[in-house]
Amino acid sequence: MYDPHYLKSFTEKVFKAMGCSDEDAKVAANCLNQADLRGVDSHGVARLSGYVKLWEKKRLNATPNIQIVHETPSTAVLDADQALGLVSAPKAMQIAIQKAKVAGTGWVGVKNSNHFGIAGYHAMLALEHDMIGFAMTNASPLVSPTFSKSRLLGTNPIAVAIPADSQPPVVIDMATTTVANGKLEVLQRKGQNMPEGWAQDKEGNATTDPLILKKGGAMLPLGGDRIHGSHKGYCLGSLVDILTAVLPGANYGPWVPPFVAFLDPASNLVGDGIGHFVGAIRIDAFRPASDFKKHMDNWISTFRNAETVNGFEKVLIPGDPERAMTQERLKTGIPLLQPVVDDLNDLASKFNLEFSPITL
Amino acid sequence: MYDPHYLKSFTEKVFKAMGCSDEDAKVAANCLNQADLRGVDSHGVARLSGYVKLWEKKRLNATPNIQIVHETPSTAVLDADQALGLVSAPKAMQIAIQKAKVAGTGWVGVKNSNHFGIAGYHAMLALEHDMIGFAMTNASPLVSPTFSKSRLLGTNPIAVAIPADSQPPVVIDMATTTVANGKLEVLQRKGQNMPEGWAQDKEGNATTDPLILKKGGAMLPLGGDRIHGSHKGYCLGSLVDILTAVLPGANYGPWVPPFVAFLDPASNLVGDGIGHFVGAIRIDAFRPASDFKKHMDNWISTFRNAETVNGFEKVLIPGDPERAMTQERLKTGIPLLQPVVDDLNDLASKFNLEFSPITL
Repeated sequence: MYDPHYLKSFTEKVFKAMGCSDEDAKVAANCLNQADLRGVDSHGVARLSGYVKLWEKKRLNATPNIQIVHETPSTAVLDADQALGLVSAPKAMQIAIQKAKVAGTGWVGVKNSNHFGIAGYHAMLALEHDMIGFAMTNASPLVSPTFSKSRLLGTNPIAVAIPADSQPPVVIDMATTTVANGKLEVLQRKGQNMPEGWAQDKEGNATTDPLILKKGGAMLPLGGDRIHGSHKGYCLGSLVDILTAVLPGANYGPWVPPFVAFLDPASNLVGDGIGHFVGAIRIDAFRPASDFKKHMDNWISTFRNAETVNGFEKVLIPGDPERAMTQERLKTGIPLLQPVVDDLNDLASKFNLEFSPITL
Repeated sequence: MYDPHYLKSFTEKVFKAMGCSDEDAKVAANCLNQADLRGVDSHGVARLSGYVKLWEKKRLNATPNIQIVHETPSTAVLDADQALGLVSAPKAMQIAIQKAKVAGTGWVGVKNSNHFGIAGYHAMLALEHDMIGFAMTNASPLVSPTFSKSRLLGTNPIAVAIPADSQPPVVIDMATTTVANGKLEVLQRKGQNMPEGWAQDKEGNATTDPLILKKGGAMLPLGGDRIHGSHKGYCLGSLVDILTAVLPGANYGPWVPPFVAFLDPASNLVGDGIGHFVGAIRIDAFRPASDFKKHMDNWISTFRNAETVNGFEKVLIPGDPERAMTQERLKTGIPLLQPVVDDLNDLASKFNLEFSPITL
């Protein structure tokens, strides 16, 4: 188990070695580190080499000139100039928060960006301002609409962070698919089958093979099949694609550039890079923040203390599992698979850095 | 099959007989009529007697003084004064649209309201202004959070309407449960079982009994069970409850007053009435509306022409099924069950109106 502080510090050095400013490197490293702490292993330091490969392919700009290209009192569009999404999304959130201070809400679309890590990190930036934060992104097409065998959508996550008073905040951070892609990777490593309803084979049949994406299959929208509401998951994934990309002018649907650097973007792109959509609602644009937060405490304790189904210890509040994981990993450290450690050693060699992780 | 125009005209007369203004009666009748045309039979004229019963119990005010009680450039809170949601929600949308014209977006929370019919109707009001419309409401608690056997949430729908150019708009209108309650009622009438994943029994076990809600059971969040992502449906239902009620000051969770007049609201209410949350995003607060709508046409035709799984004719766009149903029912009329016809005859007697429906 690896010391989270050491991993964060090493990540920051890699981003600086790529040419990122001190501040950008710090923000980006913090975002990956929070993913590791919250238990989203697929979006933490494991992804660092992926960003470097995109940079080497000149698809990612370490010294971007991120600019507002359009705005109104409560909206803005950012051209991220091929920045790390880890950098452009927090900038977009800061603009949304500033607009919300004046106009009550702020909504910022980002185009020409790259993968932004975990959506929850960006949404949570609003909390300390007594605001509700929103963050969404589109992503490489891996998901088929209901009734289709084409991959047209990403796992397109939605995150919402809502402050409370003495209770911890409600933090929703969910892919709009039945499960995130990382769940399939876990089963692949364990050599186990997956439940039906997570993915389909290349003909659109139900499957339990977690390697199915490598065989032309596709992930399924939340709901899994039509009778269990997959058309609703398809609606949600579509909504994210439209808000994050069609609205600010990024690529959408099958044109979203793949995260993996060994796959080239399509030649007939319909926009710039990938897209994000973030927002902030100032609580006291609706009612005094203290009233709202007291009622949130009541909401949270009502749900957390609800009667459980036999065999379950308690009802969880959105954000509880990630908070518990963070507490644990701050003590016990972050588990890394050997291929990830190998990747980090390679990055150290590439950039003439030392990687001598502290293990716990 | 009943003539939709006649049903709308009769509905309008009933609302006027309750004391609604001409304008309010017209808007409310149109909202119920659109539900019937779009195939959401549970939210059309079948619900008219329910509204009248709430009015008789003095839980619904036919001559409300709907007022803005708090506002900023992009937000407002409406106190609906116990209005029909069919009246307060369109008013809230008009305010959101006006704010979006000036501030780029408008977001209006409504408290002290009643059932607002189909969410999609309200969201679609934004379309003619080249805006994206949003509408949500909370509702009588029938849904259990993941791991719980308590009913704490309503079916809490989310609707989003997105304009296109030559293509019809994308219209999402979805309960955040696996299925809407109306689907259970259809199976009850047919005497058929339902699939697992739609509802649970009072102990939280899987069930296929469509009468289970009358036996203490609960509907399930979208996803159905934990392994298929029910915690995500629970997150979405919670988000709707918080935005529609905790934010503007309506009742939330188990305190939401039941729609059926024979059940009294709780005595220890935590807010006023039920709550709605509506919004409007002006497209050209992000990019020229003509650009956006052309890309929406491309998005829509790309998805609609995607390769289908064997056995399915085509991939649907959100809103397609309701549009097809509207076309059909404008020609063939609206089917009404005998108990609904009996209810409408009773309403005619009660208010000294004539109910002599034209059948097609």
